[in-house]
Amino acid sequence: MKDDALSCPAYEAIQILQEKWVLHIISTLLEGPRGFNELGREIGGCNPTTLAQRLERLEALGLVSKTVCSVMPPRSSYELTDSGKELRSVIEAIHNWGKKHLVALPLVQIA
Amino acid sequence: MKDDALSCPAYEAIQILQEKWVLHIISTLLEGPRGFNELGREIGGCNPTTLAQRLERLEALGLVSKTVCSVMPPRSSYELTDSGKELRSVIEAIHNWGKKHLVALPLVQIA
Repeated sequence: MKDDALSCPAYEAIQILQEKWVLHIISTLLEGPRGFNELGREIGGCNPTTLAQRLERLEALGLVSKTVCSVMPPRSSYELTDSGKELRSVIEAIHNWGKKHLVALPLVQIA
Repeated sequence: MKDDALSCPAYEAIQILQEKWVLHIISTLLEGPRGFNELGREIGGCNPTTLAQRLERLEALGLVSKTVCSVMPPRSSYELTDSGKELRSVIEAIHNWGKKHLVALPLVQIA
């Protein structure tokens, strides 16, 4: 491990973003606030327990904020904070790279 | 799931990059070619079996190339292909975001 790895913000940023579904969550919330179920449907493949854990962690990190609407049953809405929204440059770079380099790849290699 | 998710290069790019250690591997190889053990040491925390699997997958995707030197014992060197090197914009965006937003966070939240 690099000597400065544990205190290096670049290393820590990767640690956060490499957690499965986190990039998908951020990519989806960049389009606007989402309810919990709606977010799960749009991401696809992430079970509700994992999604709840990821959102809780992103909230703790100050990247996502949660609003609970006082209707019955209560509904939660999730949106990116200003820090979270600044991940747009990361998601855009990933999308641009994907469009340029993945269109030629057979899907079987990616699945 | 979005209707076009399975055939969307942006979605697929996230699927590839969210796999644990992949961003670390790419970030390290952007600094130059590395031997297997050297790469493992620099990344830190990734066991050799997982590292070998990730490298094999990145090779299959055409992002990493492997050169085997015919010395005894044989040594492998890994480097990014042109497609892999173009992930520099993604890694730079992540690093820039980390430097701006993570310095103020207590480490306990990230570990």
